Amino acid sequence: MRRVAISSWATSRFAKDAKMSLLELACEPCAEILRRSGKEIDAVLFSSCATDQYSSAIISEMLGIYPKVSHRIDNLCNSGTNAVASAFSMIASGLCDTALVVGAEKADSPGSKLLWDITRGSFMFPVHWAAIFAKAHMRRHGTTEEQMASVSVKNHRNAAKNPLALFRKQVSLEEVMNSKKIADPIKLLDCSSPCDGASAVLLVSEEKAKKLDGPVWIKGIGQQTNSASFANATGDLTTVEAARRAARDAFEMSRTKPSQIDIAELHDAFTILEILAYEDLGFAKKGKGGRFVDQQEIAINTRGGIIGCGHPVGTTGVAQVAEVASQLAGKAGKRQVKGCKTGLVHNLAAAGSSATVIIMGA
Amino acid sequence: MRRVAISSWATSRFAKDAKMSLLELACEPCAEILRRSGKEIDAVLFSSCATDQYSSAIISEMLGIYPKVSHRIDNLCNSGTNAVASAFSMIASGLCDTALVVGAEKADSPGSKLLWDITRGSFMFPVHWAAIFAKAHMRRHGTTEEQMASVSVKNHRNAAKNPLALFRKQVSLEEVMNSKKIADPIKLLDCSSPCDGASAVLLVSEEKAKKLDGPVWIKGIGQQTNSASFANATGDLTTVEAARRAARDAFEMSRTKPSQIDIAELHDAFTILEILAYEDLGFAKKGKGGRFVDQQEIAINTRGGIIGCGHPVGTTGVAQVAEVASQLAGKAGKRQVKGCKTGLVHNLAAAGSSATVIIMGA
Repeated sequence: MRRVAISSWATSRFAKDAKMSLLELACEPCAEILRRSGKEIDAVLFSSCATDQYSSAIISEMLGIYPKVSHRIDNLCNSGTNAVASAFSMIASGLCDTALVVGAEKADSPGSKLLWDITRGSFMFPVHWAAIFAKAHMRRHGTTEEQMASVSVKNHRNAAKNPLALFRKQVSLEEVMNSKKIADPIKLLDCSSPCDGASAVLLVSEEKAKKLDGPVWIKGIGQQTNSASFANATGDLTTVEAARRAARDAFEMSRTKPSQIDIAELHDAFTILEILAYEDLGFAKKGKGGRFVDQQEIAINTRGGIIGCGHPVGTTGVAQVAEVASQLAGKAGKRQVKGCKTGLVHNLAAAGSSATVIIMGA
Repeated sequence: MRRVAISSWATSRFAKDAKMSLLELACEPCAEILRRSGKEIDAVLFSSCATDQYSSAIISEMLGIYPKVSHRIDNLCNSGTNAVASAFSMIASGLCDTALVVGAEKADSPGSKLLWDITRGSFMFPVHWAAIFAKAHMRRHGTTEEQMASVSVKNHRNAAKNPLALFRKQVSLEEVMNSKKIADPIKLLDCSSPCDGASAVLLVSEEKAKKLDGPVWIKGIGQQTNSASFANATGDLTTVEAARRAARDAFEMSRTKPSQIDIAELHDAFTILEILAYEDLGFAKKGKGGRFVDQQEIAINTRGGIIGCGHPVGTTGVAQVAEVASQLAGKAGKRQVKGCKTGLVHNLAAAGSSATVIIMGA
């Protein structure tokens, strides 16, 4: 298998209303990448839940490029990393030498209601299953509302350093704890928020990467779809089984261990999900996730996570990959984590029913 | 690169109203493949222009399978072969060992109007650009309306032998010529018709294929996106430039020549497109496509093509691949072409602005 690297990345400012169409939004980070890396693009993979037809070809047209491959990929919140994994395989297989992955979404994108899943009954909003996960973890492992709130405090603190984040204001533990209860025990500041945003990454073949200064290699990819329905997603409500399997495969493929990860983007659509991720990825022992929030070993959600940055659904996975790539390349500016060598991205879809884990290295 | 084979395929009956939901429709051919080949599926790639969210995961759930990868792929009429090419690269790269590609579409799918393309002016229906291509070819190369009509006669004749086709009745040259004029010189029977339909193919790794009796290998893939707008799709209205490039790459990758092709599925959404394809693929010399319709060297559109089978947009590319695979495996039943060894699939999207060519061999 040919090795594949990430050679360039760009992310737009996430905003409640970016005053741009979906496709204009998508073109913004792509144009920045093309300015840096040129227009030789073999594939344009567009990650979005928007229902526009033929959008990848329109984006290519707007950018003035003529890729071999262009299509849109959709798998809800997990679309972005699916597109990155697909681009990886197109290059690793030799079908392409360069692939531009772009995620873009508007705040009013479909996918915020989980209408398809009759096993959810009337619990159609993701916050309902977040509440179920949280209650199960609290009951079984003694995780506290304050520990969950601490995830929000940390990610808002990180977002305050990220000029592209939707939320630039730090919040205190008290503010999170006193924010409006949405679905007990989940409060407003435990939740991410849909928004407008776009992000793009350029993947290149080993041959092309070797000519670059310090490429970031994709070393392992794991993916798992357990279910489309909450009722079948996991047999144990204190874990996201799909993420455990995806992590196992990604660690095996990359020949790394959880203890080698220096930096990670975790899927914190709700604070409880970051705590589950600590355990599912093997960073913390089962049940100890709540106490892991304040650790200093691994730099987690340095861009501010989904809670701090906002959650443009199809964009999120791409933006996570862009953040880890920029950190591993030592180009993360004011929020640069010193000496990070190995990074991980953890991306979920609806109720943790599917997951992608990507491991990258400088 | 690992070699990749097609080990199983199934297609539903194409109908104006199949009385099934999109996802039920999608499951039908998949269930047939799983009965034959078992439930070890690493990827489910769903090709459709329908706007349902998270549909690949729901299909997996309905089938009772737990793939690593599941996502939907959309690129209008060219979605199906994009999904096959993507599945190919996932296996060739080693990320997956098996990939189920399923296309499904309802007759009322979006994508029949080309709303995004302002360069089309008020010509929003595909028949308008078919008329432009036809007039240009008639003017430049003397192609006749009768030659175009002959494509319809041939493909309806083939469809009459295909129990799954939408149209099972042969038509005469006179019937085509006298059918209602839609956009001069295109008549009703020069056009394909949207319908309900689903098709699925199972791709497997070289290791798995070697244990099978007579697998069908994917030998070459070429893809090209020239534009999303008709105005920029081609500099010469008598050729589909994207198809020429896709064909060049597919022939090069498979180390075959047009003269070696025994059987081909060509994208005959309109009769003129099949005539252009003869030339774009190198079967006929430039300008001689009209006179190539009645040749006997290559078996073309044996299932009845898009004109005879109907055109469920996201399904078509998959159904084309399924037909060529079944022929090369010697399992095409009553319409089996004797002694065919090398086959080709040619799939276009809107105005020939993008194209995929896949070459397969027994």
